[in-house]
Amino acid sequence: MIDALHDAPDFGVEPAAHLLSALAAEYPRDAVFLAVVDPGVGGKRDAIVVEAGGQRFVGPDNGLLSLAWRRSRRRRCWRIRWRPRRLTTSFHGRDLFAPVAAALAAKRVPRGWLEKKNQPDTLLADRDLAAVIYIDHYGNAVTGLRTSRNGARLRVGGRSVEFAPTFEKAKSPFWYENSMGLVEIAAPRASAAKLLRLKVGSPVAWQRSTR
Amino acid sequence: MIDALHDAPDFGVEPAAHLLSALAAEYPRDAVFLAVVDPGVGGKRDAIVVEAGGQRFVGPDNGLLSLAWRRSRRRRCWRIRWRPRRLTTSFHGRDLFAPVAAALAAKRVPRGWLEKKNQPDTLLADRDLAAVIYIDHYGNAVTGLRTSRNGARLRVGGRSVEFAPTFEKAKSPFWYENSMGLVEIAAPRASAAKLLRLKVGSPVAWQRSTR
Amino acid sequence: MIDALHDAPDFGVEPAAHLLSALAAEYPRDAVFLAVVDPGVGGKRDAIVVEAGGQRFVGPDNGLLSLAWRRSRRRRCWRIRWRPRRLTTSFHGRDLFAPVAAALAAKRVPRGWLEKKNQPDTLLADRDLAAVIYIDHYGNAVTGLRTSRNGARLRVGGRSVEFAPTFEKAKSPFWYENSMGLVEIAAPRASAAKLLRLKVGSPVAWQRSTR
Repeated sequence: MIDALHDAPDFGVEPAAHLLSALAAEYPRDAVFLAVVDPGVGGKRDAIVVEAGGQRFVGPDNGLLSLAWRRSRRRRCWRIRWRPRRLTTSFHGRDLFAPVAAALAAKRVPRGWLEKKNQPDTLLADRDLAAVIYIDHYGNAVTGLRTSRNGARLRVGGRSVEFAPTFEKAKSPFWYENSMGLVEIAAPRASAAKLLRLKVGSPVAWQRSTR
Repeated sequence: MIDALHDAPDFGVEPAAHLLSALAAEYPRDAVFLAVVDPGVGGKRDAIVVEAGGQRFVGPDNGLLSLAWRRSRRRRCWRIRWRPRRLTTSFHGRDLFAPVAAALAAKRVPRGWLEKKNQPDTLLADRDLAAVIYIDHYGNAVTGLRTSRNGARLRVGGRSVEFAPTFEKAKSPFWYENSMGLVEIAAPRASAAKLLRLKVGSPVAWQRSTR
Repeated sequence: MIDALHDAPDFGVEPAAHLLSALAAEYPRDAVFLAVVDPGVGGKRDAIVVEAGGQRFVGPDNGLLSLAWRRSRRRRCWRIRWRPRRLTTSFHGRDLFAPVAAALAAKRVPRGWLEKKNQPDTLLADRDLAAVIYIDHYGNAVTGLRTSRNGARLRVGGRSVEFAPTFEKAKSPFWYENSMGLVEIAAPRASAAKLLRLKVGSPVAWQRSTR
């Protein structure tokens, strides 16, 4: 992932786990992901590698990699045993995860760096997250909902917004299924996040039809 | 172009077309540009390739590539006929334009991907745009004016600003000819955009001399 | 350095010099740095290359490279004599420094491009800078203090903050020694800069123990 550090929702492990799982589906089978949303850095959480559907994920064992794990049947997990000569308490992305991800990508992981582990210690619930998980540069608000409902309306930010197939045909604001397969709230030529005062974590809900 | 998605003025096809035309002049003759400001994505506009002065531009046929077209005599245009197996309605930059740009850069465009077209459907007027077309990280405001006028003052944001050859010699704010050959409004060690409350689209005008 | 243009503190040569010196220590011996914080661009300041501890730095002679110079015993300095065919008055990073940095990295500096110089014209004082020198994406505030004091409290933003070894164990806000070896003010899952209203230049001071 490019720009992962900047693009992941700050401090939010759960939204980031949903985003990572959706993004990973767009990457090749042999991709290696270095994922860091790590409020517990320097504490007791493990550093792990998850293999899921052929892809490898390197990061903290705090739930971030757990949806990739849960959503795959062909999966393995390792604890990272290796420690660099200098391990700061605040930047494991650079000191610990990056060298391991590089070794995985180069297919040269030194013996003893990884130790088999049954599963991640922290496992998030594998359900859709009915909340905003990411707000992009344009103010589009990505949700953790993977199932769109044809014609249904979505309750969000105190408003009820309807589906539109494209930005061009949309009234503002609207929802659509985005390029990662997630329900996204957008507004043509405007910021949906500003219009609806959304931030990461804002709840969303499908509305029952009143017709 | 690096960071094109983030740097282009959001939603504004016309300012982006002026910016693209000015930026392209700084790139080598055989450069390939993937340009996306595409409010009509998923609608009826064509996807096109423009060749102008040896450079190739890939993007939507909504005017974005039309100044590159208009400002070149040696030019050709193609409609993109190829469609990927999966074409989302919102991310043609990834799904459609990127593979075509990659094929052009690799000089391996499969037969049938492109079809000759006389010219882009949407052609913007080829004149200087007397408005702010881009605001950079420092708050410098780039305009669509290509012709600077020695000694003239510029009306912008309710103020009259004068020319300075360098930031060092400037009174704040000032205008100068920037590294792309466009008139730019800046302020030494401050944000001209904040000082003058400028945004993309803010009008600018040369002032008649009152002397 | 990646993203150097965006990450350096805008307009502030002194904080940037401290940041550059600390960052450089994390890079390999043969790294080449292109560093640009250059309010005097287009004026009379020299363009220079500094070699310090094997690393090379290319940039303006305005103090920016002077801490790298001062903090090394094995050091050399050159004036950049070469000028490109087209040298704009505002973008020496592109026109002048980048080609020189590229030539250094490729180990192919044409004869006559560089001329030996005894030392940079502008030399900043080589002491710790008791101020915020950089605020990162999360709102963590990096200071120019290289020496942390075990158990000491730091006066910053009108508050007294104490040391914490990790984000997990911290009360908000706190200070710790960051991954570059600098004292940094942070807050768990929040922006220290917002909490304490800090910006680049805000003063910090060690507090005398009142016990």
